[in-house]
Amino acid sequence: MRPALTDELIAAGRWMAAQGLLPATSGNLSARVDRAQVVVTTSGGDKGNLQPEDFLVVDIGIDGPPPSRASAETPLHLALYRRRPDIGAILHGHSIASTLTSQLLADGGRIVLSGYELEKAFAGVRTHEAAVEIPVFENSQDMAALAAEVSAGVAGAPALLLAGHGFYVWGESVADARRHVEALEFLLRCELEKARMRR
Amino acid sequence: MRPALTDELIAAGRWMAAQGLLPATSGNLSARVDRAQVVVTTSGGDKGNLQPEDFLVVDIGIDGPPPSRASAETPLHLALYRRRPDIGAILHGHSIASTLTSQLLADGGRIVLSGYELEKAFAGVRTHEAAVEIPVFENSQDMAALAAEVSAGVAGAPALLLAGHGFYVWGESVADARRHVEALEFLLRCELEKARMRR
Amino acid sequence: MRPALTDELIAAGRWMAAQGLLPATSGNLSARVDRAQVVVTTSGGDKGNLQPEDFLVVDIGIDGPPPSRASAETPLHLALYRRRPDIGAILHGHSIASTLTSQLLADGGRIVLSGYELEKAFAGVRTHEAAVEIPVFENSQDMAALAAEVSAGVAGAPALLLAGHGFYVWGESVADARRHVEALEFLLRCELEKARMRR
Amino acid sequence: MRPALTDELIAAGRWMAAQGLLPATSGNLSARVDRAQVVVTTSGGDKGNLQPEDFLVVDIGIDGPPPSRASAETPLHLALYRRRPDIGAILHGHSIASTLTSQLLADGGRIVLSGYELEKAFAGVRTHEAAVEIPVFENSQDMAALAAEVSAGVAGAPALLLAGHGFYVWGESVADARRHVEALEFLLRCELEKARMRR
Repeated sequence: MRPALTDELIAAGRWMAAQGLLPATSGNLSARVDRAQVVVTTSGGDKGNLQPEDFLVVDIGIDGPPPSRASAETPLHLALYRRRPDIGAILHGHSIASTLTSQLLADGGRIVLSGYELEKAFAGVRTHEAAVEIPVFENSQDMAALAAEVSAGVAGAPALLLAGHGFYVWGESVADARRHVEALEFLLRCELEKARMRR
Repeated sequence: MRPALTDELIAAGRWMAAQGLLPATSGNLSARVDRAQVVVTTSGGDKGNLQPEDFLVVDIGIDGPPPSRASAETPLHLALYRRRPDIGAILHGHSIASTLTSQLLADGGRIVLSGYELEKAFAGVRTHEAAVEIPVFENSQDMAALAAEVSAGVAGAPALLLAGHGFYVWGESVADARRHVEALEFLLRCELEKARMRR
Repeated sequence: MRPALTDELIAAGRWMAAQGLLPATSGNLSARVDRAQVVVTTSGGDKGNLQPEDFLVVDIGIDGPPPSRASAETPLHLALYRRRPDIGAILHGHSIASTLTSQLLADGGRIVLSGYELEKAFAGVRTHEAAVEIPVFENSQDMAALAAEVSAGVAGAPALLLAGHGFYVWGESVADARRHVEALEFLLRCELEKARMRR
Repeated sequence: MRPALTDELIAAGRWMAAQGLLPATSGNLSARVDRAQVVVTTSGGDKGNLQPEDFLVVDIGIDGPPPSRASAETPLHLALYRRRPDIGAILHGHSIASTLTSQLLADGGRIVLSGYELEKAFAGVRTHEAAVEIPVFENSQDMAALAAEVSAGVAGAPALLLAGHGFYVWGESVADARRHVEALEFLLRCELEKARMRR
C-alpha cells in the first residue's frame, strides 16, 4: 500500500474533524489500495488525529462480518467498493445538516439538489440546472442488510445519507471525496435553511 | 493525585472553551482522585486556560458549603460523585443549545433523544432506537437543595441539564465525559433545529 | 499611561475579531487612563491587529468634535466615562445578534435579560432571577446628540445597543468588559433564537 | 506585475477560505495590474492555498473565451474591469447567505440594504440611512451572455449576486474588496435572519 494513501486519509480526517463532521469519535474513512483491497480506519478513537496504526487493510471481497479491529461499518464501505469500481475513497461523517435533512427532507427516498452552482463540484456535473440525486436510506444496526440495500441503490450518485446518522461520500480519489463532502455539506445546509423558511 | 488527571482536565477545558462551551468564565470541571476525594476547578477565571493551581482537592463526603476557593457549584459535583460511583469525571459548561432546549423543550422534566446514530457515543448505548433520557432540573442558587434534587433524579443518565443554565455531563474517565459532551451538544442542536421547524 | 493598558486593549481586539465582532474594520475600544484621560483606538483599520500607534490619548472633558485621527464615535465613549465614573474600559463591536435584537426585539427602548444563569457574569448580578436591562437607542450619525441621549439613559446598565449598529459594553477593567461582551453576545443569541421560535 | 498584488490575493484567498467562502475549490480572485491587464486565478484548485503559479495575466480587452488555464468565469471579471475603471480587485466566492438571499430575497432583481451602520464599510457610504442596492442576476453557464448582462447592470454597486451561485465583490484595492466582502456577508446574514423571522 502506498503510504501516501493513509497520509491523505489522515489529512482528510484532520480536516473533517476541524469542520465538526466527526463528533464524539464517530465516522470512518477508507481508500482503495488496488483491485482486491482497501484500507479502512479501525473502530473508535478520534479520527481527527489518526495515526498509521489506526488503519487496517481489508479484502474487498469479504462479504460477512469485518475483521475484529475494523469499524462495524466496514461492510458498508466494502459493498460500495464492490458495486462501484469508480470509487477510490469513501469518507463517512456525521453533521447536523445531514442528520436532519435525511430525517426530515427525504422525499421518495432521496434529496434532489438543483439550481445551485456548487453542484458543479460533483464530478461530471456541468451545470446548475442538473438534478443531483442523493439517495437516503433508513438507518440500521444490521450492517449486512444495510450494505445490501445501499449497494442496490447508489448507481450514479456521489453520496448517500443514512437517516438520523450521517453521510457517506465518495470520489475517484481522496481529494475528490473531500471536495464532494464540502459541496454536499454546503448544499444540505442550504436545503435545511430553505425548509426552515417554508415552515 | 496523579498529575495526569489535572492535565486531562486542563486539556478538556481548553477544548470546551474553543467550542464556546465556557463563556464568560462560566463552567467548572472535576475528576475523581480516589474513593474519598475529587479534584475540582476553583471559582472564577478562564477555564480555557487552566493552570495546576486552579484546582482544589475536596473530600467527596463534604455535605455542606464548599471550601472557600472552590466553585459555588462544588456541592453539585460532590452529590453526583456520591450518588454514582461509576462517575470518574464531570464537565459542566454553558451552551446556547443546552440553555434553550432546557428552557423550551423539557417535557415532563426530561429531554428524550431517540433515532440518532450518535446516541451510540453514550456509554452502553448500542442502537439508534434506544431512548436516551436527559433529566432537566429547574435552576436554583440554593446549591444544597439543588444537589439533593439532582442526586435523586440522575440514575442511569449520562448527563443532566439545568434550565437556562447549562449542562453537567459525566463519564467513567475525562475522555468519556468529553465524548459525551460532544454527542450531547450535537444532539441538542438537532433537537433545537427540529423544534424551530415545527413552529 | 501604563503600556499594560494598551496591551490589554490589543488583546481584547484580537479576541473580538476572532469572534467575528469587529467586521470590516468596524468597532472601537477604549480604557480610562486616569481621572482626566482615556486611551481610544484611532479611526479605521483592522482592530483585530492593533498596534501601539493605533491609540490616542484624549481628555475625558472634551465635549465636542474628537481629535482628527480619533474614531468618529469617540464622543460616545467620552460621554459614558463622564456619566459613569465606575467605567474603566469600553468595547464597541458589531454582531449579527446585537444588530438584529436591537432592531427587532427592543420593547420600550430596552431588552430585558432574565432567567439565565449567565446573567451572573455581569458585575453585581447574583441570581438568574434578576432582570438585567440593556437600553437600546436609535442609531444616529449625529454623535453629539447620540452621546447626550445615551448619557441620560445608561444608569446601572452593563451595556447598551444602538439599533442596527451594534453593542457598547463596559466594565471596571478591560477583563470585566471582555467578560461582559461574551455574556451579552451569548444571551442576545438566546433571545434571538427564542424570537425565531415564537414566530 | 507587482509581486505584492499576487501576495495580496493569496492572503485574501486564505482569509476567504478560513471564512468558508470558497467551498469545494469554488471561487476566483483577480486584481488590475494596469490599464491593459489583470491577474486572475487559474481554474480549479484550492483558493485557500494559492501559489504564485496559480495566477494568469490576462488582457482586459479580451471579449471572448478566456485563455485555456483561466477560470471559466474570467469573462465576468474582465467585463467588470472594462465597465468600471474604478475597480482594482474582484473577489468571487460562495456562501450560504449569498446563495440563499439571491434565490429567495431578490425583489425586482436586487437586494436593498438599509438601516445598518455596517453599510458605511462600503466605499462612499456615509450613513446607515443610505440604501445600498446589490443587483442580483440569474445564474448562467453562458459566460459571454452573463458578462454582457452583468456589465449593463452594475453601475455604482459595490457587489453583485448570481442567484444560487454566490457573490462578486470589488473595490479600488484588494483591501477594499476584502472589507466589502466582510460587510456584504454580514448584512446578507442579517437579511436572511430577518426573512426567517417574518415567515
